[in-house]
Amino acid sequence: MNLKRRIAEYSNFPKKGILFRDFSPILGDPSAMSFVVEEFSKQFHPRDVDVFAGIESRGFIVASILAQKYSKGMVMLRKEGKLPGKTVKTSYTIEYGKAVLEIQKNALKEGERVVICDDLLATGGTAKTAAKLVERIGAKVVGFAFIIELTDLNGIKEINNYKTVSLVQY
Amino acid sequence: MNLKRRIAEYSNFPKKGILFRDFSPILGDPSAMSFVVEEFSKQFHPRDVDVFAGIESRGFIVASILAQKYSKGMVMLRKEGKLPGKTVKTSYTIEYGKAVLEIQKNALKEGERVVICDDLLATGGTAKTAAKLVERIGAKVVGFAFIIELTDLNGIKEINNYKTVSLVQY
Repeated sequence: MNLKRRIAEYSNFPKKGILFRDFSPILGDPSAMSFVVEEFSKQFHPRDVDVFAGIESRGFIVASILAQKYSKGMVMLRKEGKLPGKTVKTSYTIEYGKAVLEIQKNALKEGERVVICDDLLATGGTAKTAAKLVERIGAKVVGFAFIIELTDLNGIKEINNYKTVSLVQY
Repeated sequence: MNLKRRIAEYSNFPKKGILFRDFSPILGDPSAMSFVVEEFSKQFHPRDVDVFAGIESRGFIVASILAQKYSKGMVMLRKEGKLPGKTVKTSYTIEYGKAVLEIQKNALKEGERVVICDDLLATGGTAKTAAKLVERIGAKVVGFAFIIELTDLNGIKEINNYKTVSLVQY
């Protein structure tokens, strides 16, 4: 299946000069969704994964679909202030300023093996921070699952000590 | 299965006086996730649904899980300014001020049958707005799927012309 044909492009979104790659048409197409799940399952074997972690908010979708398919758990990596109870958070630099990613402290058990999911790998800053958070609460990062990778931004260099799978590259 | 035991409670979150009901423990437990999907599938038959729509952002999780299980499409109902391309949006009143919900115009085809999903039904304002959006782009709302319903807030009155399913009531 040509997944690229099911990724829409929008110029100047969310701001001037940015070409936004939108995976919405994949979500709307059950056969494309099945294809995505099959492709990831060639790369991550069910016996090697305990939990799929989704980066807010499109990553929630990728992680949920995989968790359901694999019959595994799903955990949320959220923006600051949205998770109740004891949490661990890390701030990281984005284009203009700082962003914060947060996880519930009890969301993962010691040693659980986690695949971190998002729709798109860009600069890798968020992905790297997500891995740090998962490790700080004692779990293990098995790898990353992205639908889209923007290779020009070389985000892979931020997470090159992990297995990283992306299904469509630009 | 006693799903209520898998819903965590946090006092004074996100602010003083609010008791937050958190469905995260369900997500972390594959058997609870399976139970949730089975319960919803008793209420919505696959032949009656084309698409599951998720309300940002916890609703994305519920909709994605159901879409994967049913082999149907999934569509995002997002906060303002996050969706590229042509969109339709509606503002609605929340406790202090206004909120906006938005959908891509081409996200649904004329006449497609949609189940709108979220983790929790509270006052029903967001749910009602979600239904309006789906209908404004020509699709049909089959019903609502919530994991939790706060019956004191009587949100059901806002969407009483639709089938509404919730799995746990408080």
